Amino acid sequence: MVTASAPGKVYLFGEHAVVYGEPAVPCAIGLRASVTAEERSAGMRIQASDLSLDGFTVEYDGEGRDHPDIDVPDTLVQAAMGYVDEAVTQVREAADAPEASFEITIESEIPLGAGLGSSAAVAAAAIEAGTRELGVEITPTEIAERAYRVENTVQDGQASRADTFCSTMGGAVRVEGDDCHSIESPDLPFVIGYDGGAGDTGALVAGVRERRKEYEFAADTIEAIGDVVRRGEQALTANDTEEIGNLMDFNHGLLSALGVSSRTLDSMVWAARNAGCLGAKLTGAGGGGCIVALDPTPETLTALEYTHGCEEAFRAELDTDGVRVESE
Amino acid sequence: MVTASAPGKVYLFGEHAVVYGEPAVPCAIGLRASVTAEERSAGMRIQASDLSLDGFTVEYDGEGRDHPDIDVPDTLVQAAMGYVDEAVTQVREAADAPEASFEITIESEIPLGAGLGSSAAVAAAAIEAGTRELGVEITPTEIAERAYRVENTVQDGQASRADTFCSTMGGAVRVEGDDCHSIESPDLPFVIGYDGGAGDTGALVAGVRERRKEYEFAADTIEAIGDVVRRGEQALTANDTEEIGNLMDFNHGLLSALGVSSRTLDSMVWAARNAGCLGAKLTGAGGGGCIVALDPTPETLTALEYTHGCEEAFRAELDTDGVRVESE
Repeated sequence: MVTASAPGKVYLFGEHAVVYGEPAVPCAIGLRASVTAEERSAGMRIQASDLSLDGFTVEYDGEGRDHPDIDVPDTLVQAAMGYVDEAVTQVREAADAPEASFEITIESEIPLGAGLGSSAAVAAAAIEAGTRELGVEITPTEIAERAYRVENTVQDGQASRADTFCSTMGGAVRVEGDDCHSIESPDLPFVIGYDGGAGDTGALVAGVRERRKEYEFAADTIEAIGDVVRRGEQALTANDTEEIGNLMDFNHGLLSALGVSSRTLDSMVWAARNAGCLGAKLTGAGGGGCIVALDPTPETLTALEYTHGCEEAFRAELDTDGVRVESE
Repeated sequence: MVTASAPGKVYLFGEHAVVYGEPAVPCAIGLRASVTAEERSAGMRIQASDLSLDGFTVEYDGEGRDHPDIDVPDTLVQAAMGYVDEAVTQVREAADAPEASFEITIESEIPLGAGLGSSAAVAAAAIEAGTRELGVEITPTEIAERAYRVENTVQDGQASRADTFCSTMGGAVRVEGDDCHSIESPDLPFVIGYDGGAGDTGALVAGVRERRKEYEFAADTIEAIGDVVRRGEQALTANDTEEIGNLMDFNHGLLSALGVSSRTLDSMVWAARNAGCLGAKLTGAGGGGCIVALDPTPETLTALEYTHGCEEAFRAELDTDGVRVESE
């Protein structure tokens, strides 16, 4: 029985613009998904708990699958099972063990569907746990690649490499097209506010695409985000958290112009700013979900806890650890 | 005794960027300042009421001035008296009557200091009323020029020609540098939300200047606002209010990126959008003050009336009338 964990992530800079070839900087955060894999003779069993939903258990033999008897939206459960199924497929391939079966247990501190990369973390942790359980050790690069394939299959070819790479490697990552690599970063005292909802990623991405096609100044706005990111990389290298904060604020405004913010996201961003954080922005697809603020003091967390529309607020520092084995 | 009135204004597009040579489109709105001028033998008397403050009366002889005995901030009263003083100077010059004295009464529906151009409206109406009272009729172009001089003197050479031109001419105006001219516009069903406060215009303008100097992408953002305005002119010509709304939304996001929005402004903008308005943005210097939304239905007004942080909400359609004589 092996337990591995992998971190969630926030976008420090560059979401949406990354779709058009601009660079982006996701950062791993100290909220983790843990996956325990235990080989069993036949038939899969998946248990999930604390996925910011009530948890579910489903047992099946590969032919059919019982419908899990739980009170959460079908789509979330199907999605979560889809990621585990595909991760197991990758494990079998990596370990050259096409018949391997597992009991898989998932625990996660990362709210599901909040844009914090829970699925990438589950995929990376499941691949690490499954291969180790079969006595095989694969490189982080291979884990990242296979976790990407998991996401890409479940997400119908629409996955970005950023989430899985960041979750596997930890720390700050620079993404540009298919190229991902780790970059230097100072400690980043993130505070996250979550409105309990989620935007429709597909519709939000399509909305930006439409604006970009319709308005040349929307294309310029996307390029400006790229310039913010490039400046942000310099600020990371220079360990200039104040500048990083200013750039987060600017990035948020440009995302708002592109139509991907929301009332609660802006409300949380302002609560954080008025509390004196260094900077705040939405993270991920937008339309709802999470904001990330930079604040070494306790003020922003407290402010978010008292902000109408903020369901949950928590600290989640930059996590330099990526996927790791917790026990075996 | 002559009473003249002139309208306030909102910025449909382009505030802040206009400082850097981009075009902007202010629009006159159906909220008016009325000024009554009655010649008197000697000594000035100024009465103001309903300037969204408690009103004041002050009587003086040109040598000194009694301090008005009222419960409003000194600075606002001094400012209001400054505009009237300078308007009277312009009237005397225009009518070649250096000794003329007046009893001046100001009434205004335009909240003072809310960025809705109350001072420009008072200046334009006072010049029209004063000259007419002296039996002199001057052209709108001269009124606009003289009203600009009033603002420029009181504002230490920092005034824009936009407010006074727009208030004098009415309707929609295109401003680019010192060039102002009227442009075609469809009916625009504006709804205004006012947070009861005001940003520090000087500090906000300086903040944008600093960002523009520091970041090339801030300069690009300012240019993008110019492009929004140019597209907006086309939409006005084409009578495409839906497009005008989309462009207002985009303009607001770019202003947010430049750091001139605020928590209450964003809160009102979202209340309006969620109520289904065609578009919404801050108007004027930002940091507090007013938002303007476009909505032919009653929804936005109602939503703003119930929005925390919105002190006052009102309809104020585009007003095609500029300065006009109400009675003589």
